[in-house]
This record gives sequence, structure tokens and C-alpha cells, in this order.
Amino acid sequence: MSSDLHTGFNEREYPHINRGLDGIVAFSTTKSFIDGKVGDLIYSGYHIDTLAEHATFEEVCFLLWNDRLPNTEELENLKQKLISQRQLPEAVLSYITTTSKDAEPMAVLRTAVSMLADSDATFGKYDESLFMDQAIAITAQIPTIIASYDRARKGKEIVAPLKEGSTAFNFLYMLNGEKPGKQAEKTMDLCLILHAEHGMNASTFTARTITATMADMYSAVTGAIGALKGPLHGGANTAVMNSLLELSKQGEDADAVAFTKKKLDNKEKIMGFGHRVYKVFDPRGFHLQKMAKALSEETGHEKLYRWSMDMLNTMKSEKDIDPNVDFFSATVYYSIGIQPDLFTCIFTMSRISGWTGHIMEQAANNRLIRPRALYVGEKNLDWVPVEKR
Amino acid sequence: MSSDLHTGFNEREYPHINRGLDGIVAFSTTKSFIDGKVGDLIYSGYHIDTLAEHATFEEVCFLLWNDRLPNTEELENLKQKLISQRQLPEAVLSYITTTSKDAEPMAVLRTAVSMLADSDATFGKYDESLFMDQAIAITAQIPTIIASYDRARKGKEIVAPLKEGSTAFNFLYMLNGEKPGKQAEKTMDLCLILHAEHGMNASTFTARTITATMADMYSAVTGAIGALKGPLHGGANTAVMNSLLELSKQGEDADAVAFTKKKLDNKEKIMGFGHRVYKVFDPRGFHLQKMAKALSEETGHEKLYRWSMDMLNTMKSEKDIDPNVDFFSATVYYSIGIQPDLFTCIFTMSRISGWTGHIMEQAANNRLIRPRALYVGEKNLDWVPVEKR
Repeated sequence: MSSDLHTGFNEREYPHINRGLDGIVAFSTTKSFIDGKVGDLIYSGYHIDTLAEHATFEEVCFLLWNDRLPNTEELENLKQKLISQRQLPEAVLSYITTTSKDAEPMAVLRTAVSMLADSDATFGKYDESLFMDQAIAITAQIPTIIASYDRARKGKEIVAPLKEGSTAFNFLYMLNGEKPGKQAEKTMDLCLILHAEHGMNASTFTARTITATMADMYSAVTGAIGALKGPLHGGANTAVMNSLLELSKQGEDADAVAFTKKKLDNKEKIMGFGHRVYKVFDPRGFHLQKMAKALSEETGHEKLYRWSMDMLNTMKSEKDIDPNVDFFSATVYYSIGIQPDLFTCIFTMSRISGWTGHIMEQAANNRLIRPRALYVGEKNLDWVPVEKR
Repeated sequence: MSSDLHTGFNEREYPHINRGLDGIVAFSTTKSFIDGKVGDLIYSGYHIDTLAEHATFEEVCFLLWNDRLPNTEELENLKQKLISQRQLPEAVLSYITTTSKDAEPMAVLRTAVSMLADSDATFGKYDESLFMDQAIAITAQIPTIIASYDRARKGKEIVAPLKEGSTAFNFLYMLNGEKPGKQAEKTMDLCLILHAEHGMNASTFTARTITATMADMYSAVTGAIGALKGPLHGGANTAVMNSLLELSKQGEDADAVAFTKKKLDNKEKIMGFGHRVYKVFDPRGFHLQKMAKALSEETGHEKLYRWSMDMLNTMKSEKDIDPNVDFFSATVYYSIGIQPDLFTCIFTMSRISGWTGHIMEQAANNRLIRPRALYVGEKNLDWVPVEKR
């Protein structure tokens, strides 16, 4: 055997292995643009700062699904569709209320979203004409799953979704059992906008890889939830909060600088810092930092913000690494009363808009995604019967 | 903005887009080697012909998980562990027996495997020391899920797994409610061996991408099931059978040559032909073809084999394309009494061994998988209030 078509290289040469596919351009997209050197982020034409100032999450969903902003009628139409799809199928509710109270919320969300396919009248058929409705349904149902499981595991009664109000408003209502104030709604809505889309990250890439086999949208989203769950991806915001809570055990006067330096000395990974693409401060981080500052003061969690700034400054001076989107979102979520192990679920509630946008883009211009691997094992070993091994 | 770190290229240049990551080497692996030009396939040192002749599926599992064959004690130990894990948690059984009887078996399998995490005592924690036990548990439970759902949707009583016998034997027993003969067991076992592992296919790649975020094994396998479901990947075997059944509606004398030519004229995709890696006859195809011939004669389905050969010859003469692994597996599965919409589930029952082998390999030498995309949309559009759009 003189050549290896599996790798596309002669086996005597050792080909370059693109570990992590770092720098490999695999798609063209109209969903988002990231300039990691300058720290710019654009969703389908609009800078993240513009969207943070003016848009609602529902407008961002429309934008990512259609590559343009909706007019008044289109936006109203989308809002109504989202509202009408919030209810969960009986089977999914039954799973949520009966499964282990100790299960990971992201695992429950993964299972529940997968299960939605059974109740979809189209059974999640792969059909481009159905994708938009499926995207709307899944986007509408994810917040209900998250809030329902959080209440179920705490032994509280499930709160049925409202037949009005924004995604952010309704989610906080279902989670807490009471309608949120204007400020809380606005904070949640802004968090949803900031996390909606971010290029070819691992979960979006997973969604596109699954879609490229012409598997259905539920399969793609379920896979993406699994990827987002990982602490090297969306799971990082929970990990950041756990660090801050570890610190808070040392009391009000805990020293975040010493805490950070000790972790660095021990070569522990410090979550919430560094990013494959951004080499400067993450543009989403500015908005989250502003929110974290205001909210932590308002809610009596100033120490969280102070510690965060101490960690940030220590990381900058010791390692020249900037925080990523997960760093300040932890303090923001915690300050508005969300439990750390729900943080990645909130991320999912938002990122579903980007995932489904990418799924539709992939389907419209599809090619099976199948890289190669270099085989480095033995070849053609002789069989030895089990009793002689 | 003069440069784009997101793509690694100046935005005025149009970088090469590696569509489908075709030819991109992303990993080194000891799991399998494919020489697509010669038509060779090796699993961790052993040629597929050697394994087809000598091995059992359980030995192949051990091989893919340990990169060597087991000795007598190790093999016995693995068999006992697999047997002891066959039972499903109550919650999973309850889901399987109550969900829609019209749901897709692969969708139910995806949901059920995801749900297994809630009952795992470790809740699917990402921990290399737990991976082997998780791999064994998932491999043991998948056949039970498939057989249970097939019986449940047909209104038949669920058959509890045996506390003895091979994976192949026990699966056919649970599916049919009676113990299979030697020949049926051997056929099923060989099918499991032939589908166990195949390099960086879309589902295996999905599993590695999810694992690379340090998400748990259940997340990775659930994502892989979603990818395998697609008709451009594992779903193809169901599609092949549907073609043959479409043909059989024309009666005993159906003309498979004309049928194939007509589809080619209409530019319809003919499933079961062509492969990204193999340029010659798929080595697994030889074994499946031999089985398909023998079984179709034995079970009175000779016409299926005859039509298959007519299709194969027509595709070869018209398009010079060879059949892939899915082409003859369809006839084999159908001949041993398995329903077409279960074919991809059987594929999963086998490929779980390769997936979990790759998951462990990825975890042992991890790097986040994050390619890039070229942004081709607008930039920095001005905000226009909704009423003016």
C-alpha cells in the first residue's frame, strides 16, 4: 500500500494536521463577521453596538433568519408565532417533571429538545420549507423547558407561559412566578441579543455538520446543545460563577488578586478568559461589564464586580489575556437571580437563533462535512486466537 | 477595517473555502485506516477481512476501545459487563412506550440515549476515568432501546434483555420475541463488525467536535446519532431499501435497469452509491454482497438481489460509480426480517463502538474544534426604526 487516500497524502510523508481546524475556512456565511484584532462583531450587517442600543431579541431572530430587519407587520407576525408556540407537548412536560432533580439542566434541555421532534406534526422532516417554522417553534419552546425544569427540580409548581410579552419577559415570569420589572426584562433581552450569534463556534459548527447529512433540525439543535454544554464552550459561564462563589467563601474581604495568582501558579485553567478568535477585549464584554457594574451595585453584589475587576486586571498584567463573553455574563445572570447551573441554558435560549440561521444557510448550499484523519496505528496484524493472546 | 482575523485573510482577497472540509486532515487516529484507492479498511491494526472471518462484535468493541484484542479473561469480563448493563432505566422505558407510534426510530433513539444521562450515577460527568464504563453502558443499552421501541410502536409487549448471549443474539431475541438461530446471529454479528468504525465520517466527526468542548459522552453520542440519521450518511440504507420496495411495486418482473436509468435521466440521487473516500468497491460491500446473495436466496427474496445487481451494473456502466456499504446492507437487513426504518438504528448499534473509541481518543489529546467562515454579507448598516422599514 503506497498511498493513503484517506489522508490524501503519501503515507511516508507526515501531513500537516490541522488540530482544532484552527484557521481553516470551511464556509461562507452572511450570519456574522468577527474582527478579532479590532474587536468588532456584526450580525447580518449590523454592528453589535447598534443592535445592543436599538434592537430587541425578536428583531435579532428575524435578522439572523432572513439577513434583514423585519418591518412592523413582519415583526408583529413573528412575535405572535413565538407566543403561540411556547406551550410544551404533554410528553415533554411529563419528562421534565419526573426526571431526576439532580440531573444537569443542560442535559435535560438536550433531551427535551430532542423529544420535541416526536410531537412536531412533520416529525422534524428535513424540508427547507419547514425549517423556518421549526426554528420558531424550537426558539419558543426552549425558555419554557428551562424554566419548567428549574421549578420542577425545586419542587415548585410549573408556571404556564404567558400569551403575551417578549421572550425575555415571559422567561423571567415562568422562572420566578412573577412578572419582571422593566429593568430586569431589558437586561435579559440584552443578554439574549449579545449571545445570539458568533461565527463558526463549536456548537454552530456541530449544527452545520449534522445538517449537512440532511438530518433534521431537531437533530442539529440537539447536537449543538451537547456541544455548548462543554466547559470549553458555553459551559464556561457556569465555571466562572463557580470561581466567584469559591472566592466568596473566603468572606467579604477575599483577595481576588491572590486567588487568581495562586491559580496561575498552580497552572489551573481560569475560566472566562481568552478566545480562539478575539485577541482584544470581546465587544460583547463591554456591554456585559456595564450591566454587571450597574446590576451588582443595585442588588448588593458589589463584591462580585470588584472581584471580577481584580481578576481581570491580574490576568491582564500577569498573562496579557482579556476576558471573554462568559466572564461578565456570570455576574449579570447571578445578579438578576439566576442560578449558576442555568447560565448555559440561558446561553442556549439566545444562541438557538444563530444556530437555526446557520442550519438554514447550510441546507440552502449543502455539502457533506467530512474531514480526514492520519492513521498512526499498526497495519495488517495477523489474527491470534483469543486463548493464545 | 482592513483585515479579518475571523477568516485569517485580508477581506479583499477571497480565501479558499474548504467546502465539506474535503481532504483536510484534522486528527491523527489509531482507530481506522482506509485506503480508498485499493479498497482496504483496517480497524486498529486488523484488516476488515481478518475481522470478518475471525472476530465477534464484542472483540471489535474491545479492539476499538483499547487498540488491541482482548485475552480470554478480558473478553469474558467485557461480555459480562455488557450483559449487566442491558436493562433500561424506568424513565427511558416509559418514554419509549408512551411516545408517538409514528415517531422516527432514529429520533426516539436520539432522545432515549440523551435521557440515559439522567440515570447514570455520574450524570455523564466528563471524566476520562469514567469514559470506558459509559461506553460499555451506552453500547449495551442502545439495542434494548431499538428493540423496545419497535415492539412498543407495534403494540407488542416489550421483551426484557437476556442475561446471557452475544449483543447480536440478544438484540434479535428482544426484537422478535424468540431466540434466533445460529445463522441469523452470525449474520447480525457480521453486520455489527462491518459497520463498527470508518474514520472521520460525519457522525464520528460530530462526536469528536462535541467532546472537544469537554462536554460529556452522552452529549457526544446524542449528537452523533443525529448526524447518522441523515440520508447522506447512515440514513442511506433506509433510502436504498425504499428504492427497492418502490421497484417491487412494479411486480416480480420489474426492470431495475430501466428504473435506474430513468432516475439517472431525471437527475434523481440514487442512494447507496459513491463515497467521499472509496474510489473502488467498498471492502465491506464484498462481505455484505455475499451475505445478501445467500440470504435473499434462503428467504425467498432473490428478486431483491437480482435487482440490486442490475442497479449496480447499470450504475457502473452509466456512471462508473461503485456501491457503498449501505447498498447491500439494505437487502441483508430486509432478508433477516428487519423493517427498513430500523436500518439506521442497527447501524448505530454497531457504530457506537467506533464513536466511543474516537471520543476517548479525542479526550486524551484534546483541542477545541473551531474552524472559520468567510463573511460575505453587509457591514455596519445604519439602524432604521421599525416603522420606517
